[in-house]
Parts: sequence; structure tokens; C-alpha cells
Amino acid sequence: MPDSLRVRPDPTDPRLTRRLRGLDQHGAQVEVSVTVERPLTLYLNGQEIVTMMTIGDRPEDLALGYLLNQNMLRPDDTVSAIDHDEDLGVVVVRTERPTDHEARLKKKTLTSGCAQGTAFGDLMENFSRSRLPAEAELRTSWLYGLLRAINTLPTLYLEAGAIHGCALCREDAPIVYMEDVGRHNAVDKIAGWMFRNGEPGADKIFYTTGRLTSEMVIKTVRMGIPILLSRSGFTAWGVELAREVGLTLVGRCKGSRFIALAGEHRIVFDADPKRDGEESPRHWRKNSREAENHDA
Amino acid sequence: MPDSLRVRPDPTDPRLTRRLRGLDQHGAQVEVSVTVERPLTLYLNGQEIVTMMTIGDRPEDLALGYLLNQNMLRPDDTVSAIDHDEDLGVVVVRTERPTDHEARLKKKTLTSGCAQGTAFGDLMENFSRSRLPAEAELRTSWLYGLLRAINTLPTLYLEAGAIHGCALCREDAPIVYMEDVGRHNAVDKIAGWMFRNGEPGADKIFYTTGRLTSEMVIKTVRMGIPILLSRSGFTAWGVELAREVGLTLVGRCKGSRFIALAGEHRIVFDADPKRDGEESPRHWRKNSREAENHDA
Repeated sequence: MPDSLRVRPDPTDPRLTRRLRGLDQHGAQVEVSVTVERPLTLYLNGQEIVTMMTIGDRPEDLALGYLLNQNMLRPDDTVSAIDHDEDLGVVVVRTERPTDHEARLKKKTLTSGCAQGTAFGDLMENFSRSRLPAEAELRTSWLYGLLRAINTLPTLYLEAGAIHGCALCREDAPIVYMEDVGRHNAVDKIAGWMFRNGEPGADKIFYTTGRLTSEMVIKTVRMGIPILLSRSGFTAWGVELAREVGLTLVGRCKGSRFIALAGEHRIVFDADPKRDGEESPRHWRKNSREAENHDA
Repeated sequence: MPDSLRVRPDPTDPRLTRRLRGLDQHGAQVEVSVTVERPLTLYLNGQEIVTMMTIGDRPEDLALGYLLNQNMLRPDDTVSAIDHDEDLGVVVVRTERPTDHEARLKKKTLTSGCAQGTAFGDLMENFSRSRLPAEAELRTSWLYGLLRAINTLPTLYLEAGAIHGCALCREDAPIVYMEDVGRHNAVDKIAGWMFRNGEPGADKIFYTTGRLTSEMVIKTVRMGIPILLSRSGFTAWGVELAREVGLTLVGRCKGSRFIALAGEHRIVFDADPKRDGEESPRHWRKNSREAENHDA
């Protein structure tokens, strides 16, 4: 477990998974762990905003991060209270600044079918004016170090599957690793954590298991982070937006391979892919651990 | 290509992917295909409903399926017109029955962070009263045949990644295969296609690459399909809902392995997993083709 890790998932938390019985391919009884998701309703200054399905481990971070990424909370806002009621499945955020998002909530949602409902105008607000630090570096030795560290973390994914994860990193070390049933929840949780801990994005690298869509790019930029990595693929609009603001965008990170489609100027090729990259399929967590789980 | 396949993706359609240049792990210039998603705004009888990000290949099916799965269109409704304007990115559906969803649209959305905004009440409407055919069978020989057929289809996934797919099947043959950037879009497209073609769900099997969440279960049941398969994992609530209505739920389908957590009574174990299942990693499309793509 990396020393750098300040927040990590707790796959042994009994609230997050449930043991269920079923049959395997031989018709034999098996017992498996599955992820538990529960609804969480978010209020801001008395106004109901949204109900989200979440594994429920970090409701305050999720609430703050959601509001920040939806532009309903500003980075310079003072949050006077965050109250979570686990039984009711409610979290209430109060700010010193009065808010009224009635108009915003009426806007028709933009969804990719794999993203939470988001008013399009809000997503794009201020995006083009975003400024990311030019001097930030992505050394490929750090990239390989990150992949190795992340792929060996104990996570809910390995326990129960059906989960997405994101990591906030610095150089070759993960600092915060968050998971949830939806990749947008995982991103929002990290945004909320950064806000609560006054942690800047400029010197960070962001890693996600999810696809590099437009929404993922926009959120990363909103968090002030200049480098975004994923083991998954891209969408054309995600790449276009990344290029517009000079975000360093690296996808399809698997083994020793990756593809950079934006912000390539930050990349320092100081590693030897054959020597430093992970070629062995044993390290491709998504496959190896699932295979082990089936045998268990 | 299976003879049974009536609708399949066209990965050669130039509108669906874009070639982009970047750098690989050696710092060498590469060119890759990435998926293109574009906004599509849906109107029902003059009322704006939602804007969805979609690869844009089947706007009418997507529109109808979305409305059906959101309970805004009823299976017995008469659709008097569907008009798609590609330039404007708009699709208008008109029904003989007047509709007004103003109240429904104001409801706070339930999202998993990986699902389109859906009013919770609508999703659950009538769910418990659903009746699925008890006599439907899932022979494991069919399951293996389906996985084999689906994993060898030429798809956008293999071209460009970042895509989810769903297949409507009968016994061991896929009939319709749809893809999109979001798995909910892919499901909705199939629902829309079934509606337009008067195709029932009772004798079908549904396959998805996406996770077996509550929303996936609810949509499958709404489409009248008694059997749902996925190569991905489960969530506890998805399993709970499936058990409530007796949907046959089989996940983590990979190689010769799978896990059934609901509706096991429909499964007929007529295959030999070792002989009939696909064990070779070559057949695990998600890995093998991605590796090939990197070398291309």
C-alpha cells in the first residue's frame, strides 16, 4: 500500500457489499459479493437538487463535488454546514451565499446515457476560459508507477465488481482513491475532497477507469488538474475539448501501452516501455482478479 | 456473421468515428479511431424532453425507446410521426394521444452517475406488477453460442472503443445488435426497434456489455424480456429487483464462466462448460482487440 495514499476504499466495510447466493456454470451453488448502491438525496440551502445512486461511503465529499462540478457551488464559497442523515439517505449542504437553482434545475438534461443528468449550459460555462499550468509534467516513469500502484490497491472492484474508480495523484503516487457505481460519482467525490482539504489541482494527475468523454474532461479541467489518464478509450468531443484548453489526455493505458491525443507537450518520455511498463496479464487487474473471483 | 442478425452496427460508417493523431508510449506518432458522439434533442408532441449524447446512427429507435423506457410513451400508443433533422440534431415524436410531461420533467432525477437522469417514480411505476413468462428457457448451450456470436461481430467497439453494446437474441442467435457511448442509449435503441417492428420480448434473451444495475433490470422487464445476460457484474439492488419479478439474471459471463443470481429456474444446464465455453483469451474481445488496435 503506497505511503502516499491518504484516502482509500475500504473493501471490508460491510455496508458496501452484500453476499448473495446463486449458481455457476456447472449449476453448482456459489456465493459472491455484489456492490450495494443506495439513493442519496442532496439538498442545497433547503432546495432539493438531485437523488443519486451511490455506494454511500463518502456522502459529504460526493455532495460537495457534485455541486462544484455542476457549478452550483463556487470554489470560493463558504460552506457553513454539511449534514448527512444515513437513515433518511439525505445530505444537506448550506452555504453563506444564498442560492436559488430553480431555473437551472428546469434546464433539459444532457446525458450520454452513461452520465448523470447535467444541464448542458452549466457544463460548458467558463470552459473555454480555463487556464491550466503549462509547466506541469507527465513523466512516463510516473505514469507506469501510477498504473502499478493503482492496479495493486485492494478495492471494492476486486471484491464485487460493477464499480468505477478514480485516483488523484502527484507524480508517481496516488494520494486519494475513490470508487462508486458510477464514474461520475467517483470523480465528484474527489472534487469534494479537494475542496474540503484545500488541495489544489495544478500539481496533480487524475486517473480514471472510465472513458474519456466530454464530461470527464470538463470536470478534470474544472478541478484545475492539467493531466488526465485512463485505461479506457476516448470520444472525439472529449479529445476536442482537451485540445481546446491544452489538457494532457492519455487513454488506453494498459500494460506498457498508451495513446496521448491532447496536451502531448507535457509528456516527458523518460521511461523504457519494455522495461518499466507492466506487460504481464497478471497485472491487468480487470481480468486476473475476476478470474480469481470466479474460482473462489 | 450470423444469418439471424437483422440489425448490426456499421463500423465503417464514417459519421461514427474520427481518425485522430497522437503519440504512443514510445513518443511515436500514431493515428487512431475514436468514437464520435453528438447531441440529440428529443421532443414529444412539441415539448422538449431531453438532450442525449449519442453516436447518432439510430435517432428514431433511440427516441422511441427512451420515451417507452421512461414511461412517457405507452406500448399501445399510436405514433403518428417521427421526424429527425440531422443538421439540427433534433428528433420529434408525435402521438395520437395528447401528452403533457411538465410535472414528470420537474421531478428530481435519480442517477447512478452512470445512467441518464430518470425520475425515480417513473422507473418503478408498475414494476412489481410485471409478469414474465415462466416457461421461457435459457439453455447454457444457447448462452455459449450467443457469447461466441456476439464476440465475433464487427463492431464500433473494436474500431474505436469507448462504446457499449446490447443484443436482442432468440435462443442462440443475436437478432439485433445496437451500440452507443452510453449503455442506456443502446438499450433504449433496442426497445424502440422492438416497438417499431412489433417484436415481442417474451421469447427473447437480452445481452448487454454493461453492468446489471437496477435500471438495466427495470428496462429489460419493461421490454417484456425474461432473461438478461451481461459480461459485467451486478449491483445488489439490481439482483433484488430481478428476484422480485423472477427475471433470469446472469452476469460475469466470460469464457466458460458465469454467475446466475436470479431466475435460476429457467436455466437448463445442457452444455459442458469446458467443451462448449470459450476459454481462450483470444475470444475475450475487450482485451484481444484492444491489444491489436494498439499495434495497428
